[in-house]
This record gives sequence, structure tokens and C-alpha cells, in this order.
Amino acid sequence: MTAAFPPHADTGLLAPGRELSGAASETGDPAYLRALLDAEAALTRAQAALGLAPAAAAAAVTGAAVPDGFDVRGLAARAAQGGNPVIPLVADLTGAVGEEYGPYVHRGATSQDIMDTATMLVAVRALEPVLADLGRTERALAGLAAEHRDTVMPGRTLTQHAVPTTFGLKAAGWRSLVLDARDRVTRVRETLPAQLGGAAGTLAAFGAYGAGDAEALTRAYARETGLAAPVTPWHTLRTPIADLAGCLAFTAGALGKLAVDVLTLSRTEIGEVSEGTGGGSSAMPHKANPVSATLLVAAARRAPQLAATLYGSLVAEDERPAGAWHAEWEPLRDLLRLVGGAAGHAAGLAEGLRVHPAAMRRNLDATRGLIVAERLSAALSPVLGRARAKELLTELARRAHTEDRPLRELLSEQQELRGVDLDDMSDPARCTGFAGILTDRALERR
Amino acid sequence: MTAAFPPHADTGLLAPGRELSGAASETGDPAYLRALLDAEAALTRAQAALGLAPAAAAAAVTGAAVPDGFDVRGLAARAAQGGNPVIPLVADLTGAVGEEYGPYVHRGATSQDIMDTATMLVAVRALEPVLADLGRTERALAGLAAEHRDTVMPGRTLTQHAVPTTFGLKAAGWRSLVLDARDRVTRVRETLPAQLGGAAGTLAAFGAYGAGDAEALTRAYARETGLAAPVTPWHTLRTPIADLAGCLAFTAGALGKLAVDVLTLSRTEIGEVSEGTGGGSSAMPHKANPVSATLLVAAARRAPQLAATLYGSLVAEDERPAGAWHAEWEPLRDLLRLVGGAAGHAAGLAEGLRVHPAAMRRNLDATRGLIVAERLSAALSPVLGRARAKELLTELARRAHTEDRPLRELLSEQQELRGVDLDDMSDPARCTGFAGILTDRALERR
Amino acid sequence: MTAAFPPHADTGLLAPGRELSGAASETGDPAYLRALLDAEAALTRAQAALGLAPAAAAAAVTGAAVPDGFDVRGLAARAAQGGNPVIPLVADLTGAVGEEYGPYVHRGATSQDIMDTATMLVAVRALEPVLADLGRTERALAGLAAEHRDTVMPGRTLTQHAVPTTFGLKAAGWRSLVLDARDRVTRVRETLPAQLGGAAGTLAAFGAYGAGDAEALTRAYARETGLAAPVTPWHTLRTPIADLAGCLAFTAGALGKLAVDVLTLSRTEIGEVSEGTGGGSSAMPHKANPVSATLLVAAARRAPQLAATLYGSLVAEDERPAGAWHAEWEPLRDLLRLVGGAAGHAAGLAEGLRVHPAAMRRNLDATRGLIVAERLSAALSPVLGRARAKELLTELARRAHTEDRPLRELLSEQQELRGVDLDDMSDPARCTGFAGILTDRALERR
Amino acid sequence: MTAAFPPHADTGLLAPGRELSGAASETGDPAYLRALLDAEAALTRAQAALGLAPAAAAAAVTGAAVPDGFDVRGLAARAAQGGNPVIPLVADLTGAVGEEYGPYVHRGATSQDIMDTATMLVAVRALEPVLADLGRTERALAGLAAEHRDTVMPGRTLTQHAVPTTFGLKAAGWRSLVLDARDRVTRVRETLPAQLGGAAGTLAAFGAYGAGDAEALTRAYARETGLAAPVTPWHTLRTPIADLAGCLAFTAGALGKLAVDVLTLSRTEIGEVSEGTGGGSSAMPHKANPVSATLLVAAARRAPQLAATLYGSLVAEDERPAGAWHAEWEPLRDLLRLVGGAAGHAAGLAEGLRVHPAAMRRNLDATRGLIVAERLSAALSPVLGRARAKELLTELARRAHTEDRPLRELLSEQQELRGVDLDDMSDPARCTGFAGILTDRALERR
Repeated sequence: MTAAFPPHADTGLLAPGRELSGAASETGDPAYLRALLDAEAALTRAQAALGLAPAAAAAAVTGAAVPDGFDVRGLAARAAQGGNPVIPLVADLTGAVGEEYGPYVHRGATSQDIMDTATMLVAVRALEPVLADLGRTERALAGLAAEHRDTVMPGRTLTQHAVPTTFGLKAAGWRSLVLDARDRVTRVRETLPAQLGGAAGTLAAFGAYGAGDAEALTRAYARETGLAAPVTPWHTLRTPIADLAGCLAFTAGALGKLAVDVLTLSRTEIGEVSEGTGGGSSAMPHKANPVSATLLVAAARRAPQLAATLYGSLVAEDERPAGAWHAEWEPLRDLLRLVGGAAGHAAGLAEGLRVHPAAMRRNLDATRGLIVAERLSAALSPVLGRARAKELLTELARRAHTEDRPLRELLSEQQELRGVDLDDMSDPARCTGFAGILTDRALERR
Repeated sequence: MTAAFPPHADTGLLAPGRELSGAASETGDPAYLRALLDAEAALTRAQAALGLAPAAAAAAVTGAAVPDGFDVRGLAARAAQGGNPVIPLVADLTGAVGEEYGPYVHRGATSQDIMDTATMLVAVRALEPVLADLGRTERALAGLAAEHRDTVMPGRTLTQHAVPTTFGLKAAGWRSLVLDARDRVTRVRETLPAQLGGAAGTLAAFGAYGAGDAEALTRAYARETGLAAPVTPWHTLRTPIADLAGCLAFTAGALGKLAVDVLTLSRTEIGEVSEGTGGGSSAMPHKANPVSATLLVAAARRAPQLAATLYGSLVAEDERPAGAWHAEWEPLRDLLRLVGGAAGHAAGLAEGLRVHPAAMRRNLDATRGLIVAERLSAALSPVLGRARAKELLTELARRAHTEDRPLRELLSEQQELRGVDLDDMSDPARCTGFAGILTDRALERR
Repeated sequence: MTAAFPPHADTGLLAPGRELSGAASETGDPAYLRALLDAEAALTRAQAALGLAPAAAAAAVTGAAVPDGFDVRGLAARAAQGGNPVIPLVADLTGAVGEEYGPYVHRGATSQDIMDTATMLVAVRALEPVLADLGRTERALAGLAAEHRDTVMPGRTLTQHAVPTTFGLKAAGWRSLVLDARDRVTRVRETLPAQLGGAAGTLAAFGAYGAGDAEALTRAYARETGLAAPVTPWHTLRTPIADLAGCLAFTAGALGKLAVDVLTLSRTEIGEVSEGTGGGSSAMPHKANPVSATLLVAAARRAPQLAATLYGSLVAEDERPAGAWHAEWEPLRDLLRLVGGAAGHAAGLAEGLRVHPAAMRRNLDATRGLIVAERLSAALSPVLGRARAKELLTELARRAHTEDRPLRELLSEQQELRGVDLDDMSDPARCTGFAGILTDRALERR
Repeated sequence: MTAAFPPHADTGLLAPGRELSGAASETGDPAYLRALLDAEAALTRAQAALGLAPAAAAAAVTGAAVPDGFDVRGLAARAAQGGNPVIPLVADLTGAVGEEYGPYVHRGATSQDIMDTATMLVAVRALEPVLADLGRTERALAGLAAEHRDTVMPGRTLTQHAVPTTFGLKAAGWRSLVLDARDRVTRVRETLPAQLGGAAGTLAAFGAYGAGDAEALTRAYARETGLAAPVTPWHTLRTPIADLAGCLAFTAGALGKLAVDVLTLSRTEIGEVSEGTGGGSSAMPHKANPVSATLLVAAARRAPQLAATLYGSLVAEDERPAGAWHAEWEPLRDLLRLVGGAAGHAAGLAEGLRVHPAAMRRNLDATRGLIVAERLSAALSPVLGRARAKELLTELARRAHTEDRPLRELLSEQQELRGVDLDDMSDPARCTGFAGILTDRALERR
């Protein structure tokens, strides 16, 4: 059954969940093939629109430029000689178009025009499901934040209980990051440009073939591809690639924050949340693993270094660099499908997340009441004086620990606190500060 | 003379040119100390503005919060115990303020509030000279592009001459990247927020001390610091850090593109540009090294990985992470001063760059005229037919190489080309396509 | 008090705990200055040893090459022009040596000879305290592993309890990584070579000054520096730098594994270990933060990217690259002192770690006995058949969860298990497999 | 034709030349499937060898564990639920083995045992062609170094001509790096261990199924797989992965040095070497691009960041981490096939490299003789005194530049140099120092 693959093919065996996202099928080799063909066809159509090629040529090229007619594996193999897949593709496409209109295939263009334009098409297409999944994620998180606006839980810093917070504020924070990611991806996606420059970015060959207005040609090409029109060719001005790197690394990290919190809160001893559908284990039938969160964290560990390679490719010498450009292809694809899979997992995770307020409440007692020490310190200062309040709490905190008794109980034994409403001061639910209001404000953002 | 430094101090010995930029002095330990003190003073003032502290306390803290009164080395040493420098700083500042108003120092805050606010202040301050140097750079490049709008030079792809281009288009491209960097840095700089959250981001302690309106407090604090007001605390929502990472990695790469081109064009055999003031060599008195371009490339090699670490820190668990936050401090500082030094070098490089059109012209002949082959192919196709034109040029290109004769000469011997104006077709200066117009368009951007 | 520093100086304010390690003072600017001077003095001595310079010149240079006579800040500032600090240093040292023997300073050498040799000296010196701290760490971990050979605790996979393990095996595993780090660092440290090549790596200038045997000169130089003798100059063959990158990134990661486990086990809800001296919090007097583990994790987050920059610098064009070399300096220094600080923290952490077997025992019950499900499944299969055993356990696991009852209790109610020794099967302490033997074997390694 | 692929499949379209190496087919999904099945079969055989399973079970599992019977695409899809492909694979393999011996499939093991063992098998198999290609490369480079031991060429530092060197020394240096890579890969490859630990690394389940000697079982398993036997399970002690990261990043960088030099020396204006079979261009028929060198540089730009991700995964919490492990899979595979393709390209590049001594000779004149200034300075010092020699050369260097005349000519006009043998001093071929001897020494290494 595996015979259908060349032995070096990758179909996701090492990327569980990649397929959860539509980004996967927009970034496979077949999708790149389609985008490359779309870029070629758009070029001939743009030239036809300006009278630089017969309308019939545009129709012929567009008609031939369909993936089914091409052998993606063979193109991959033949890409080695010239260092990119456009060279063999142009040969095959020219052949498919036939003798009459074949000369209008790729006319005036350089391989990089097609490769870069195709890459932008792939990015635009792959980011659509990413944005959809980010939308699902933020809506689910908004629901959780609103529902648990006042659900008290331990706030944790440097792994230790600090003061109480709410699950609502936590979920609202996750959502803020998702919205930040959405905004960054959206902004970048809208600017992704077509590429058209010819051999060295001067568009000279197009002029030689009759183009009189470079700007009109570039605009027509952009229109045919659906991409933005660049001011100049950007063969070695790699802003679009770097911008993609930035917004994708951001998105992976933003979702990674959600995931790492879910992992922590899912720990057996903590148990404050659990994934809706945890993954099974091959050895322990009872285990429900936080699989989505795990894969999200894995993605977040990888994305920054993939982005670093892309930022590094800004250093692109000459009119086409020997290496920097080629080093972009796979990392950008990897980032797109990694973030695609992550967004898919995140949406499922957020929509299915089960929250356990009872466990949160139980955990609030884990420090025998010390989690409200900050508040007690502030509340007792007016009563006892700041110095005495601090001294007393330090002493009782020590005793709570060594005698394994609740702080509340020790406080009630103190003569100097007779008449003070200790219940109010010691209730973690009354120690969440402005968590509710902050949650409300965060949820106002759309 | 070195006795003044602790043996582990760094004063730039391994960072030639760091001091060229004002960013260096805005990112040293003394600058961080100043920013930390500014953050503390602003906090007390903000509380006073809302009636939560006496005006005299604000004055006292502001008066005491001056770097001269603090021992930066001692603070560094004492930072080890608690894992950050704010803890010992608060102790010292409280002492300096004195018994009466000491209790208003750091009231309600957590170390991260101060550390993050200080980091944003440092970033805002360090980016000012960066933007100024980017401005100098783009203006100098605009001048070069305009001056050399029609200066012809070889366009190079994959290290080989491809077709002619102009130095004007090249310089305009460099400038576009600098403008892209300027826009990204400016946009990020304007959004950098103050941090205020208290122990776990709920602002609870501020409430305990009397604050009734979290938003008003946060706004007052932002106003006193001059930073943007955040919607919520961002202790573990690290968008500002990631945004800085992205725009700084971009800037380093954008300047690296300029630098790598200067390095190539400065090569002894190419000699098309040279740095205004090349660095000397310790062994060869005649050598003029492209030192600025070298250091720019070095910066561009490092920045992406520093940014990767910062993107990685988005994955920040809980209400304050154990490691991710601490891992941001030095890489962000390094990025700021690395990009600062790079921008300083770039400005000097662009302003002093010497351009050698004669060398460009000489190099255009290096392929014996083959650099115009693309244009000849287009121009001869109507005369000879496409197939014959290609066949002839392939043959003559081979002969030009083996016989070491100019292509122009071989063409003139061809019977079938009698009467064709070969001079026009073979002139590289007439093969620059739309380079001039593209340069004009690029220069319209402000 | 801060006046003694130039405003751009770094003395550790953002690097808590750097000073814990002797590596800090071996990697500061003063240490680099010393190493640069040592490299110069060794060169003159080596030439004197071969009769290429007067013995008095060697003595004069060695006498003058002491850090106190040099202004490290001034050298840093003057390094900008030529792009490295050796150029101004040679000028100053030549002046200090005086007219007679000044000409023997740096004779035949290039800046990179001195810079690279100094860098290797710095590395050798900085790695000594690193190795000492790794030794302390592994000994402390060996003690913990032996002491807790049979201390049962939950084994955790993907954040969930899986099956029991022992703390001894865990500590033995941490130690294995530390030994792996020690072995890698030791191996690399022994091979670090002196650098001697002259202007372009041919040693030509040394020949011009009379050297007849390149190998003898290189060996003499290596001997005077205490470094290994290279086969050829390695100006652009950067194996030593890459090897350092690899062993340092490994060490940071190895210690990061220890740290991340300590962080997890220190969590308030888990409480199985605690740092001997936790750091205080500025806002919550009761909190004891795992500061050392936090800083170790921060180091482990940064080291891989610093190493990546160094691996990237292997791509060093020509006989001296324009950027790749310069990009090594600060990242290598950062790695050395980051790993130095980490090793210092790790030693303190390991030596002070407090282990809480009672908490481990308590946590073993967190799954109501399901942590022994794997063992029960194996043990009951011979009794009930494999299918029935699995079916029964799946059912009882479900009930244990929904009814909140211990699995042991549910099992005892099963008729079909009458007479089976459930106590033995259900005791986590009897489910640790070969943990003890594996611990013993691991501890045999020295 | 593309219908055979799922739309998200990758078959090398973005990785020109990947297929040049046998490493490609050893790292595809089919190869991983085979390795996973090999790992399962070896486990049953190892248990049979110790009497823990019937010999017939071993035969049955081994017989069933052939890739043809499995659907790699389906496994990839089903891997999402549990987060790894072993879970569905075990189900399918158990089914294929049948009712009688099915229970012996995967008995006692955890998914990670199989996944890690398979990964090590893949690495061992993929590194074999890498080592073969490194061998081809070093032999070809040894031939070039010997042949061109005395071929003089310009030594270049910071892009400028410095002093003469030889192509022999350059090629010998490239070879040294290749040998360093070979040694590091070989050393790591020999240590790659099988993985066997069971659910949490205690081998408990194997004990439950009757194993009495953990060490014997591990050894038997290692023997059946052909891998090294580990001292303890290494589920979270990721030394083997980090070691692979290091040696692969090193290899990519080492080959990148060769490539970047070839790119520079291939530049149109330099022309000192050319690739045997340059790649064509889609737009310029005359262009011969250094395609192999380009793809090698692209690989070297990517490898360090992939390695960084793997070093980062050393920080693997608990007995199986939630993310760090999963983050290893694709980057390690990418590194293996990237380095595989690079080694394949390097072998072809080295074997086919054409060297042009005449161009080297021509380029030596590019500085009008200044390339021998260092030697002249040393040679004239005894004649004129050091100060005068330096003064004279500085003056003549200036004139050589401004008057565009050879330094040799200007020297011959100097009265004070009457009778000095200027020909000898000015001959670049006599300025190569110890290049020949250094080449000989470097070539002695095997």
C-alpha cells in the first residue's frame, strides 16, 4: 500500500494532527504545484489583458495549467539540476500548451517570479483556515471567560501559589493572545504581493516583448493572482517572507501559552481542567493524555527557530542570492502547516475544554490559607500597624506549615484580632482584586 | 585602570562599534537602573494622583529614585537570591526614601511590574536613536538612488552576471527595506505598554490599599511613565516582547542586505563600491577593509536567533513563568544594542559610500557581451524566428567563451544579421528595462 | 556610584547568579584583555624560543603584557575602526614595550591569531569552574540517588500519572546527563588549539622574519599558551568553536532537565522536592520560589540559539570572513558565562535539594490506585484471562473515578478475585519494576 | 498523476537534490514505517530469545512486520488522536499477527520505546550514505589539494586581497572540515542506542510478564535491532538526539564552508573555479549557475536552527514530556535528509570542480602588486630600516592606486633599491609561506 509513495515522501507520519487543519492540504506538494501553475497562467492572462499576448494564448495556458496534467514527483526529481522546480515545470507546461501558444508560457519571467508568487498564493490560502481556527478558538475562549468570570482559582508564580485569581481572567488572557495573533496574521496576509521582475528585477524582458508600462503589467499580474501589487520587484527585498515569519512565530507562541497552561492545570495533582477528548496510551488504558496541548507545545518549540531561518534569509546578496532564497522554501512551508495544525488543535482544545471549579477551590486550600497572606497583610495593617501585621503573619505562616493547621484557625486564636472579621479577609473568593473587571474589559475587544 | 570594573563586566570589548549608537548607553546596566527607578517613582506618583498616597510621598520617592544613589554592581550581586534585581532595589529605595514615606515605595506592585515597565522604558529610549539612524540611512540611500538612477551595472543572480541593472535601483531597494524597518519599529514602539498587575495580575493589592478603579490606576501609571496603557496586565501575555523581537530581527536583516551587497561589490575583483572609511589591517598597511559592512553582517547573523529566544518566551506558564520571563532579559537587551550599533554603522556606511561607475561599466564586459543575451534573444526573434535566434545565440555564446571574443564581434560576422542595428541591441545601458521608473516609484515613498 | 561604569556597561544586573560561577570573572572584558595579552606575550616567547627574537624581547613583552597597564574601555571604543580590539591593543602594547623591543610585538601575526588564541584561553579557563561545578552536581545527585534508591513516587508521562517509579532512578538519570555533559566538555576542552597563521593562514610573514619550520613555531606557540597545537591554521576552519557550541548547548540542556523536573516537583500541589534556599518574593513573604531551577531553565531556553549562531559561523568564506567571525565573539562568551552560571546554580540546587518522600507517597494515591493498573492488568491476566482482565479493569477504573472510591476497594468486592493477593498487586512500592537495579547500574558510572 | 498523493504530502518539490542522497529514502515516511515495524519485531524476538515469548510468536511478528501490509497514510491520519503513530500501528500489527500471537506484539513496551528505537534505526541507516558521500568528498578534495599544492591564488580577508595563498591549502582545509564531520558523525553513529523502558522507564511491565533480568532484556533487544545497548532507558535523557543534532549541524556547516568558497570563487569577475555541471537558468541560456554550492549554502543556513530545536528538547520534564519529545521528530528527520542531500551535493561538487589557475594568476595582479606588500615590508626592512621601508611602501601603494601603475614598476624606479632583487620579492608565487608544507601535513590525516 505504501508503494504509491516514493520512499522519501512525507505524508504526516511524524506530524500527528497536521491534517486537522485545512492548511495541510494547502501546503502539500500538490498545492504548491497548483500555485505554480496558477502563477504561470496569471502571467499570460495579465499579458493578454494588456495586449501583449493573444487572448487565445491566455486561454490555452490557463486551460493547460491544471495540476492533473503534471507529475509532481517527476518535477521534484528534475528540480535538482537547476535548483528549483520552475525550470522543469515551464518545460512541461510549454509542451502541454502546444506549439502555437507555448511561446507565451513564462514569457519574460524568471523562475523566482513564479516561485515567489506561488509561495504567496500558498500562504494566502493556508492562512485562511488558520484564521478560521483562530476565530473558533477565540470564540470558545470568550465563552469560557464569561462563564467563569468569577470562578476562583490559585494564581501561580514561579510554580508556587501566589494569590487567588479567576479562571475567567486566565481565559480572557489566552483569548487576548489569540486576537493579537489574528490581527497580526490578518494584517500580513493582506499585504502579500505578487512577484514580477524578470531576470534581475528590472522587468527588462517584458519591455523587450513589448510592455511599455511596468506598473500596469505588475498591477494586471497582481489582479490575476489576487495578490497585492508590489511597488518594485522584491527578489531580494524579503519583507513579505519576514513578515510571515513574524506573525506565524507569534501565533505558535500565543497558542503555546494556552497549551502550557492547560498542561499544568491538567496535571494529575492539580486537575483544574481537562481536554475534552484526551488521547489514549498504548500501555495504560486509564490514562487520558492532554494530546492537543502537547502537540501545541511541540509546535511552539519549533516555530521560533523556523522563523529565525526566514529572518536570516533577509540577508540576500545580489539580485538573487545563492542560498538565502532556497533556504526559505521548506521552513516557510513547515511554519505554515505547523501553525495550521496548531490552530486546528487549539480550536478543538478550546471548544472542548472541561473546567473543574471544585478542583480549583480545593487547590486554593493547598497552602493552608497562605494564599491570602497578601490580602491579610494589607487588611491587618490598619488594625495592628504595618510592622506588627507583617511580624504576626510571618510567625503564623511558619506555624501553619510546621503544625499543619489552617492559617484561618491560627488567626482566630490571636487575642489582638478579637472582633476582626477574619472570614471576609480569609476568603480567597474575596481576594481576586479586579479580576472580574479586567475580564470584562478584555472581552470587549472584538 | 581596569580595576574599576568587576572582572565579569562587559564594556564593549567584543562589540566593536556598539558605542556608535545612542542605543548603547540606553541599554547598559546604568540605563536599566535608571529605568527601574523611573518605574518605581512613576508608580508612587500615579497613586498620589489618584489620592492613594500623599503627594509628599510621590515627591520623596521621585527625589530618591536617582541612579547616583544606588550601587548597580551590588544590586547585580544581590539579584541572585530572589532571581531578579527589583527585590534588592526596592529594599535600597525604601531605605533611601526614609521611614515616613518608605511604605509607599513599590506599594501593591510585584517585581515584574517594575521590571517589565523598566524594560519598556529602555526599549522606547533605545529605539529613538535607532530610528534616527534609520532616517539618516534612508536619506543617504535616497540620495544615492537618485544620483545613480541611470548608472548601469551588472545584475547578478546566483553569483553570475544575469542582465544589466542600475545602481539606482539597487540603492532604492536597500532604502525600501530601511523604510520597512522604520515603519515596523515605529509601529511597535508606539504600542509598548506599562506593566501593572500586582502579585498575580489581578491588581488585588492595589485594591487592598484603596484603589477603586483599576483602569484609572493603570492609566495614571502609564501616563507617568509615558508608555501606553495596557488593557490588562501582560505578565504572561508577552505580545510587546514578541513584537520587539520581530521588528528588531527585521531591522538587523534589512541592514544586513545592504551590507552583504556592499561586501560583494567591494571585493577586490569587483570594486564597484567602497566604504568611505575602511578599517585598517594589523598586518597589511594597504588594505582598506569594509568594516562597517562586516559588523552589519555579523549583527544580522545573530539577531534572528536572539529573536527566536524571545518568541519562545511567549510560552509562559501560569501567572508568572519560571524561566521564560528571565530568559527574555538579556536577549532583548542584546537585540536592542546590536540593532542600535547596526543602525549606527549603516548610517555611516550609507552616508560615506563611494560608488565607482567606471568599475561597473568595466565589469559589464566580463561576460564578453553575454550579459545582453536575454535582450538579444528577444530582439532577434522577430528577425530570425524564435528558434533560430535561440540556436544562433547559443552557438555564439559558446564561441565567445572558447574563442575569448566579444559576442558583439561574432554577431557582426553573421550574414543573416546584415542591416540589423547591433549596437543598440548590444549596449548594456539600453538593457536596464524599467529600472529607472522603478527607482522613481520607490523614491516616492516617504 | 555608577559613575565608574560607562553607561553602556553590563555588570550582571540582568543576569542573576552569573557571579555564582568562576566562569563569570573568566569571561568579562578584563579576562579577555588578559587573554589577549597572554596570547601576544606567548607569541614573542615562542619566537624567542626558536631564536627568532631576542630573549630580552620576550621578557620585555611578557613584562609589559599585564592588564593593569591597559585601558579596557578605551580599547573597546577604539575597536570600532578596525573592527576588532587587537589593532588598538597592539599599538598600546608596542608603546608599552618601548622602542627597542617594540618591533617584536605581534611580529608576523594577524589580529585573528591573537583574538582566536585569546578566545581559546578564555574558554579553557572558564570551563574549569564549569567542570568543577558539574562535579559537585553529579556527586550530590549520586548521593540523592543512592539515598532514595527505593523511594517510590509517581512516574509521570504527558503530565499524567503513569506507573510508579523511584526518586532514586530519577536522580540517577539527572546525574547521567551531568556526566554526559562533563565528558563532552572535558573532551572538547582538551582539544582547544592555539591559532597561528598570519595574514592569510600561510604563516608567510613568520617565514619572512626567519622562521624555517612552521610546525616548530606553531608547537612552540601552543606550548607557551598551554593550548593544543593545531595541524593547520583554522581561521576559517571553525571546528573548535562549533565543538564548544555543541558541548555548551548540551550542558545547558542537561541541567535544564534537572531544573524542569525540580520545578514540576516543587509545585504547590505536588511538593515532592523543594530547593534548599528558595528565593523570596517582593509581594508575598511566605513564598519560597525555586529560583535556581528557574534560572537554569532560563539558561536552557537561551543556549540552543546561541549555539545555532556559532554553528552558523562555520560558513566562513575566504581566508577570513566578513561577519561570520565577528558574529562568534559575543555568543561564545554569552554561552560560556550562561553555562557557568547554570553549573553554579545546579551545584547549589543539587546539594541543597530537599526530598519529601511523604508527599510522593501521598501523590501515589491521587489516581485512586489506577497508577498500578498496568501491573494489575499483567497480574490478573493469568487469573482471569487477558481479555477479561482488561475489561474488568476498564470498568473498575471508570467506577473508581465516578464513585470516587479507591480501585483497591472495588477490586476486593469482585467475586472472581476471591483468594487473589490484592494487597501485593496494589502496592505501588511493588510496582517499580527494575528501578532499583537500573539506579545501581547508573551509579556505577564514574 | 498527483492523485496518488494526499494533498498534504511532501515529495521533495521544495527540496531540490534531496534525492541525490540515499538518506532521502531512509528518512521518508515509508522508511519510518519500516523502522517502527523493525523495532516491534525485534522486541518480540528479544523476548523470545530470553524465553519470555514463544519462538513462534517471534516468527509471526517478524513475518507480519513488513511495510507492504500497512497503510502509511492511514496511520498518519490516525496518529492525531493519541499523538503518535505507534498507537495505531500496534493495533494494525496485532491484527496482522492474529489471535494466537497478537498478545506478544508490543508486550511490555510503551510507544516511546518503539518510536525512539525506530528513530535511531532511521538515523543509523540515513547516516550510512552520508558517511559514504563524505568519503567521496574528502577523497576528491584530497586529490585537488595534492594536484594544486603549489597553485598560487589570492588569499582574501574581509573580501579584500590580503597575501597570496595556494588552492592546495584551501582544498586541504575544506577536506579537514569534511574529516572532522566524518569523525563526529561516525562517533555518534556508533553510540546510538535502542530504547526500552516501558511506561515510565522502569521496565516494570516486562518484569510483570516474567523478565527477571532487565539488563539481559535490554541487551537482547539492542542485539536484535543492531543498536547499542543503553545503560538505562533514556526517555527523558536525550543525549543521543542532542549528539545527532551536534554532528549534523557541524556537517552542514562544514560543507557550507566549502560551498561559500566555491560561490565566491565562481563569481563572474573572479572565475577561479566552476562547478562541473552548473545549473541552467530559465531566462538566460548562457548562464551556468553554481547550483550545488547554492543548495549546500541553503542547507547550512537551516541546519543550526533545526539543531537548536533538538538541543532545546533536552529540557524534557517528567518521565515523558508533553511536547519536547514530539518536537524532535520532524526536525531530526529534516536534519538527516538535509545533511544527506548536502553530502550528496558536496560529493558531486568536489568530484566535478574545475579549477582555473590562470584566473587565479590573473587575479593576483588585481591590486597592482600590493598583494605582496607584506612580504616586501619584511624583505625591505633589513635594507632600508623598518620605518623607512614602511614609509616607502605606504607612499608607493598610494601611487600605484592613483597612477594605476604596478607596484613593481614604481619600486624599480627607486634609487635606494638599486641592486635589490625585486623580482624575487614581488613574485606572488614566492609569497605563499608554508602553504605547501601545511597542505602536506593536512593530507597526512586519514
